[in-house]
Amino acid sequence: MKEELRLAPALQVSQWLNSRQAITLEQLRGKVVVLHAFQMLCPGCVSHGIPQALAVHRTFPQESVAVIGLHSVFEHHEAMTAVSLKAFIHEYKLSFPIAIDQAAAVGPVPLTMQAYGLRGTPSLVLIDKAGYVRLHHFGRVDDLQLGALIGQLLAEPASPAAVADIAQGQSQNGLICDAQGCPI
Amino acid sequence: MKEELRLAPALQVSQWLNSRQAITLEQLRGKVVVLHAFQMLCPGCVSHGIPQALAVHRTFPQESVAVIGLHSVFEHHEAMTAVSLKAFIHEYKLSFPIAIDQAAAVGPVPLTMQAYGLRGTPSLVLIDKAGYVRLHHFGRVDDLQLGALIGQLLAEPASPAAVADIAQGQSQNGLICDAQGCPI
Amino acid sequence: MKEELRLAPALQVSQWLNSRQAITLEQLRGKVVVLHAFQMLCPGCVSHGIPQALAVHRTFPQESVAVIGLHSVFEHHEAMTAVSLKAFIHEYKLSFPIAIDQAAAVGPVPLTMQAYGLRGTPSLVLIDKAGYVRLHHFGRVDDLQLGALIGQLLAEPASPAAVADIAQGQSQNGLICDAQGCPI
Amino acid sequence: MKEELRLAPALQVSQWLNSRQAITLEQLRGKVVVLHAFQMLCPGCVSHGIPQALAVHRTFPQESVAVIGLHSVFEHHEAMTAVSLKAFIHEYKLSFPIAIDQAAAVGPVPLTMQAYGLRGTPSLVLIDKAGYVRLHHFGRVDDLQLGALIGQLLAEPASPAAVADIAQGQSQNGLICDAQGCPI
Repeated sequence: MKEELRLAPALQVSQWLNSRQAITLEQLRGKVVVLHAFQMLCPGCVSHGIPQALAVHRTFPQESVAVIGLHSVFEHHEAMTAVSLKAFIHEYKLSFPIAIDQAAAVGPVPLTMQAYGLRGTPSLVLIDKAGYVRLHHFGRVDDLQLGALIGQLLAEPASPAAVADIAQGQSQNGLICDAQGCPI
Repeated sequence: MKEELRLAPALQVSQWLNSRQAITLEQLRGKVVVLHAFQMLCPGCVSHGIPQALAVHRTFPQESVAVIGLHSVFEHHEAMTAVSLKAFIHEYKLSFPIAIDQAAAVGPVPLTMQAYGLRGTPSLVLIDKAGYVRLHHFGRVDDLQLGALIGQLLAEPASPAAVADIAQGQSQNGLICDAQGCPI
Repeated sequence: MKEELRLAPALQVSQWLNSRQAITLEQLRGKVVVLHAFQMLCPGCVSHGIPQALAVHRTFPQESVAVIGLHSVFEHHEAMTAVSLKAFIHEYKLSFPIAIDQAAAVGPVPLTMQAYGLRGTPSLVLIDKAGYVRLHHFGRVDDLQLGALIGQLLAEPASPAAVADIAQGQSQNGLICDAQGCPI
Repeated sequence: MKEELRLAPALQVSQWLNSRQAITLEQLRGKVVVLHAFQMLCPGCVSHGIPQALAVHRTFPQESVAVIGLHSVFEHHEAMTAVSLKAFIHEYKLSFPIAIDQAAAVGPVPLTMQAYGLRGTPSLVLIDKAGYVRLHHFGRVDDLQLGALIGQLLAEPASPAAVADIAQGQSQNGLICDAQGCPI
């Protein structure tokens, strides 16, 4: 049975850092979007996820690939405030736009994290040129694998209809990685 | 001005290891070929190039990506004989086919190395599904960059004519990395 | 001319974490003390200094070597509060006692940092069994070098008078590393 | 029961490289000797043991610590000849003296390897100033641990009789690491 692709849910953001204005996924249609969900005090994010997000930002031209950090705090909320995050961004020289995930009215998990069904941090979400979620991964992804996925998404046409066709086909054909691996 | 793509020259091989029979590039049409030129006593090959070749071999299915090692000895010939190479392959658990580059009648540089114009080891050559050389790099390539290139080549159609069109276009548009970087 | 060794200044601490009670250097006489000054949002501390302090804590028995973390915040004070530090300690599984360096009445540099004349974070201070400062280093120290220093200090007798003699002699003989290197 | 220390057996060497003349352990009395047994085609030697031996050579002054490489080939003999080893030493820029372990008349294990009872490569043997074997380890040793051992041995007096006393005592007191770890 064919798995349905779904359009990436809207980002729900209380504050944008490293960006003068709010960014919407609609504005990024035509680009491959690399959404990196992290917490500033998550060791795996600091040692692996964030350096990888910086490398993606450095390697690919911004006209083709948009890197967005998503600060999705679901524990130690009082320790990872906007004030602390700003110092973290400064010290780690993070250069890409970072969205603070909107806290929920009830419960510790913020709204964008809920909407995407993220299981923890670091998580990586790849969104194609037409706005569909094509990878959704909790934990570590190898650079080689991530590069291959971005390369494939870059090679797809920018027209939403064409992309959707390809994406459906590729999903059906198992062309794109999932949390279990990279069966290209 | 548009740079002409060239078909990958034939491999000139005195002996194949890890393969029961000789392999030709013609047989690999339809696959992306990752040609990794190395010398067994080259420190950069051992620390970086060979682990990367193994990672490519492990990450991508063999139906799509063919990894070929090319032992191109241009110095210390007496120290890197076939006997030594076989022990090296065994100890480092190299699993992909390895071609011993054919020694020249005159001079230290073997024939395939000459034909490709390789500047040293490690060198990486990427050949697309239609047999054209699309990357030619001496030294270290980041995993992220290499993954992106392989991903793009994988996304191209397998039909030689179509590929040649795309390849020419991409070369013109600066879509593919060269020794200076990765302006995808 | 012979450089005078000096007794390690007292720790001035607003709060102890990972310890039920305040620790004084006097209590640690007879042990080698490894004082690791850090800030929780200092990238070099997180990537190198803190893992090294954990390794020292794990490698040497606590009867011989005492590892003390010193959280010396001299910038982004509002981002590195005790609340944030507690979450950091929990997430990074820091197991050794950590002292929060007492803020100064005036100026950003806390009191212990001032007393030791630390130039920044990470900084490493080695105190011998008799309480004398034997190494004072800002930045990265190799594990091999640090191990050699701890090994030498461990080999010294525990009696304060004897240690002082040795220490004076060794300082004179250039046996112990300083910020410029390790001329053992 | 107290374990007897034993004097390091003589090196049995077919050829010295990186040294104009043969070196005997007797000549090195008064120094700490770090004997690094390796094979040039052993991956763990190349990735870990040899870089560590180079770091020891670079970190400690040669008046205090002598690093000796011991090429103990016990497999693939035809692949690791003196000719190949010389190219390896040149390519990896090994700067310390290297002894080729004398092949046995019968069997694959060379004579020094037999005399020391080495279990494989890489192996590390530490010999104190009086010529006693104080560490004997097959596999990987952490830099921190190795530094601590060298530091302790450096701190011992150079007089053979005194050293022997200390060594016996330390062995009894469990001060020195063995293959199981580092219970200083």
